[in-house]
Amino acid sequence: MGHKLRQHIEQITPLSDAEFDYILSHFTPRKYKKHQFLLQVDDPVRNDFFVLSGLLKLYHTDAEGKEHILQFAMEDWWICDYQAYFNQTNATLAIDCIEDVEVLCLSLQNRDKLCSELHKIEHFFRRKSNGGYIAMQRRVLSLLNNNAKERYEQLLAQYPMLFQRVPKTLIAAYLGVSRETLSRLS
Amino acid sequence: MGHKLRQHIEQITPLSDAEFDYILSHFTPRKYKKHQFLLQVDDPVRNDFFVLSGLLKLYHTDAEGKEHILQFAMEDWWICDYQAYFNQTNATLAIDCIEDVEVLCLSLQNRDKLCSELHKIEHFFRRKSNGGYIAMQRRVLSLLNNNAKERYEQLLAQYPMLFQRVPKTLIAAYLGVSRETLSRLS
Repeated sequence: MGHKLRQHIEQITPLSDAEFDYILSHFTPRKYKKHQFLLQVDDPVRNDFFVLSGLLKLYHTDAEGKEHILQFAMEDWWICDYQAYFNQTNATLAIDCIEDVEVLCLSLQNRDKLCSELHKIEHFFRRKSNGGYIAMQRRVLSLLNNNAKERYEQLLAQYPMLFQRVPKTLIAAYLGVSRETLSRLS
Repeated sequence: MGHKLRQHIEQITPLSDAEFDYILSHFTPRKYKKHQFLLQVDDPVRNDFFVLSGLLKLYHTDAEGKEHILQFAMEDWWICDYQAYFNQTNATLAIDCIEDVEVLCLSLQNRDKLCSELHKIEHFFRRKSNGGYIAMQRRVLSLLNNNAKERYEQLLAQYPMLFQRVPKTLIAAYLGVSRETLSRLS
């Protein structure tokens, strides 16, 4: 279970066994079933989630009941309503399971504690955050370019495995196009 | 000159005089005139820019010659093509001046050196990156919601000073709407 997290952190910084055990002791493992919520709108956001297995989505439901998907997450990805998590406010986004899921939960308190105690963990999270920022900047650009076909092809090239696991309706909600538009593209 | 950077860093972490002098010695001050480029597409990305004064834009020009603005930056903001900066590849985005500008330049090598030598600077940049990620996530959401009026009002509420300094054509290129649509909104 814990090894996936260790491999993930060691892509950026090496850890001793003692360091990894100490880090892991700040995470709480949890399992969720398909369709179960990890986070609902207006909930306090207690945890960031590192995905050990399964598939989730982070999304906003608009006034007309339409879902807008900000992010998918699968093995080795992190997922959270980060605005609410870092500001310790209630969620404006929801997270639920597209497949059965195993995650490791990290509270903001434990994250800040680890970052403060272990410089290399602060380094790890800085690097992860930089990567997340870049991915979001690319996503903004692809939405501004506003060409559904290019957005579809970019997603397919970046994350080919998503297309085997995620229903087309959800891909459409991620790309910001209708299910009908997506059918013409795929 | 340097004090703006110190105030900016000390919003997150306190610094001694010696620490600040040491940090500042890793930055290079530069001045640019209105319309001058800080970065052009295909240039190597040598620096991240901290803005001391003036106003800039980060943007992509599409195949039809249309500008899509990813970000504005004014006093106390950072601006860069971060994908190219962190990966040390050539720029896919351009940065130019909407007003005369004074910036402090930080190379990736100096950023990594400071982060490695001073845990508090790694903490500072982690916090800044988290903030940037949140802002980008909000922007993705506003583009997915795809209601031009709401996007306009959100920008106005977040950054009222932008509207006094940025030409309407550029606001439209940031919001992803036509100049005519923007006129109906404002």
